[in-house]
Amino acid sequence: MTTPWEQRYAQRTQRMGSSAIRELLKLTEQPDLISFAGGLPAPDLFPIDEFKESADRVLTRHGRKALQYSTTEGYRPLREFIVQKICRYGIEAAPENVLITSGSQQALDLIGKILINPGDRLLTERPTYLGALQAWRSYQAEFITVPVDDDGLQTDLLEEALCSGPKFMYILPNFQNPGGVTLNLPRRKDLILMADRYGTPIIEDDPYGELRYEGEHLPPLVVLDAEKLNDDSKTNGQGFCRGNVLYLSTFSKTLAPGLRLGWIVAPVSVIQRCVMAKQGMDLHSSTFIQMVAYDVAKGGFLERHVREIRDVYRHRRDVMLKAMDQHFPTAVRWTRPQGGLFLWAILPEHISAAAVLEKAVEYKVAFVPGTSFHPDGGGENTMRLNFSNAKPDQIEIGIKRLGQALSESLQETIVLEPALV
Amino acid sequence: MTTPWEQRYAQRTQRMGSSAIRELLKLTEQPDLISFAGGLPAPDLFPIDEFKESADRVLTRHGRKALQYSTTEGYRPLREFIVQKICRYGIEAAPENVLITSGSQQALDLIGKILINPGDRLLTERPTYLGALQAWRSYQAEFITVPVDDDGLQTDLLEEALCSGPKFMYILPNFQNPGGVTLNLPRRKDLILMADRYGTPIIEDDPYGELRYEGEHLPPLVVLDAEKLNDDSKTNGQGFCRGNVLYLSTFSKTLAPGLRLGWIVAPVSVIQRCVMAKQGMDLHSSTFIQMVAYDVAKGGFLERHVREIRDVYRHRRDVMLKAMDQHFPTAVRWTRPQGGLFLWAILPEHISAAAVLEKAVEYKVAFVPGTSFHPDGGGENTMRLNFSNAKPDQIEIGIKRLGQALSESLQETIVLEPALV
Repeated sequence: MTTPWEQRYAQRTQRMGSSAIRELLKLTEQPDLISFAGGLPAPDLFPIDEFKESADRVLTRHGRKALQYSTTEGYRPLREFIVQKICRYGIEAAPENVLITSGSQQALDLIGKILINPGDRLLTERPTYLGALQAWRSYQAEFITVPVDDDGLQTDLLEEALCSGPKFMYILPNFQNPGGVTLNLPRRKDLILMADRYGTPIIEDDPYGELRYEGEHLPPLVVLDAEKLNDDSKTNGQGFCRGNVLYLSTFSKTLAPGLRLGWIVAPVSVIQRCVMAKQGMDLHSSTFIQMVAYDVAKGGFLERHVREIRDVYRHRRDVMLKAMDQHFPTAVRWTRPQGGLFLWAILPEHISAAAVLEKAVEYKVAFVPGTSFHPDGGGENTMRLNFSNAKPDQIEIGIKRLGQALSESLQETIVLEPALV
Repeated sequence: MTTPWEQRYAQRTQRMGSSAIRELLKLTEQPDLISFAGGLPAPDLFPIDEFKESADRVLTRHGRKALQYSTTEGYRPLREFIVQKICRYGIEAAPENVLITSGSQQALDLIGKILINPGDRLLTERPTYLGALQAWRSYQAEFITVPVDDDGLQTDLLEEALCSGPKFMYILPNFQNPGGVTLNLPRRKDLILMADRYGTPIIEDDPYGELRYEGEHLPPLVVLDAEKLNDDSKTNGQGFCRGNVLYLSTFSKTLAPGLRLGWIVAPVSVIQRCVMAKQGMDLHSSTFIQMVAYDVAKGGFLERHVREIRDVYRHRRDVMLKAMDQHFPTAVRWTRPQGGLFLWAILPEHISAAAVLEKAVEYKVAFVPGTSFHPDGGGENTMRLNFSNAKPDQIEIGIKRLGQALSESLQETIVLEPALV
């Protein structure tokens, strides 16, 4: 049945697709299916009692403020809290450099709104985060990609891509979604040098940085950039305020995704532009939610809670990796992430992960085929597995099932192929 | 200090301005200033105890669900609640016709995203809601306007504007922001006929419809449109699903604006398109907030609460109108709204409301000059006054102050003008 609206859709909607992951999540809501598909944090870790206490306290003490309209920039104590929090990683921001967003996804949409003209080329990692592609396709961006390996973006392959004049680069340096890989320090420095040389700024998306289960924390790109600018004496010690890097993060992986709270850290002039855009998008993020999140997080709770999350997720990652060693065919390779929520498996080239998924769903296990994370094609033989959501015994069962589906897929292909050729 | 970002801003940002109202609100936060400038509901009416109980209940019973990611469409029981709620006004929707948005402002942004190409003409009332202009300017829309009078949009002046081929019309039929005027029934029917004749669909924005303080409720445009389509036997009784009208509303004026919860009612195909767009914008609105809002609103509470709001706001409107009769110069005219939050004053043509505001702020009272609500210019001698936020004694004092500012402005102009001529 057609409506008068169909013929009126904007050109940009032709690029919009529903997220394959989110559509898949709907199908995999059967209770007996073990899903490694979503990017869901473990709900058993949500600090529900703390949220109850904080919601009650906020409403008791500041109810009228919490339920009223508020400023677009966000709740000031929460912005100050974020400043303190990121200071530990060397980011020298003031509250004026922080804008609260309705989840990191809104930060991506905001960046699209203020920066992308139709036809602009953006440089991303390959594979990269699907949500960014979704947000920026709606601004009619084009994508050029540079592959990642176990040490993150292959900066030695970056130059050619930079020569084609991308508007900005989009980089997930820590435990990248979907690859699970981390950009090593020499490459971080290379990246900053090349960004400066080619005048191509960087969007640094860091939702998982705090969830490191082993190894040393590496400095964010925004810090390396500010240091470089200061060393060059270009900025009179104001490196951060002149910055080539916008930094994004979120409470979704540390407190709770159901809040929809993220943030952008940027030079004040960029924040002001974002504020104008956000006014037209949703006026401001929920006052109540911001105040509750601040009340839960403050006073050291968030740090303690993140330590607990790290212990649980480290264990789940280890359980998954061990089960994969045991049950996956030897022809399959995978990443061994130092943190985050995801690992990435690469099947033999002739195997379609989409076909494996069909079989896997019969075995009551699900994952996300990797093609969606490849904005310029490829990745048919790749898959993303989430290890944060399912409990360890479920991870073992699920990986065993998936191992069976994979083994059968590999055998069938081998048996069938001669007949087909 | 310039950053690498300035030279990269998208073309669309040239049309983006910060909302004059929101910037003004920042300036008028002095505690001794009486502000009629914002569109703030009365915080003393917020059902804080009910929110406390509901937040506790939701977290106790469904904490893991409330803090987790959820579907883009919104929390199903809340969508069902909205279906029941709007059914009383004759809107025959199913939950599939309802999308929860992060405030009505996001609904406006969504509509811009799925419908507006750069250069598209949109038809609005004059004056009209500033937030819609802000949202749609970022999609590079152009505006054509048709004036309102005390009975709303002057439909007899509509034809010429429709001939210029607007993509859609944007109409606030009830107690319009900023004019406070209501579209009468004959004009509603005219509007629907002309929308059909010219093939120009309608966005019906109805944030205030429930806040009627006197007179009879009038049928929404979306209902009149469905009835017409059914009468024409064009739709086999499926008028709503073929609809020419998208209907928007919000919990901001009835429950609390700090939640940031609104909704779109539309044919399923349009909702699906909106869902795709919203995925890229913020994934979904806060699960926790949606569940708490549902828990507060259900079981008849919202209806009872709205009755209480109506009584309080009716009184405040009456206090303001009486004080204006007493203190405003006779050369000033104003609307007498049957509901909503705003009334609209028109000064003699040679008086600038912006100049009056400067004087008013000295007298510690504020309002919004009307120019911002005129997308194609004009309105320099108009002002919007909010009567919902301040308490009755403050309204009396504030209007007295504003009367003084107005009288002085009028006298000065009269004295000065001969000298200037």
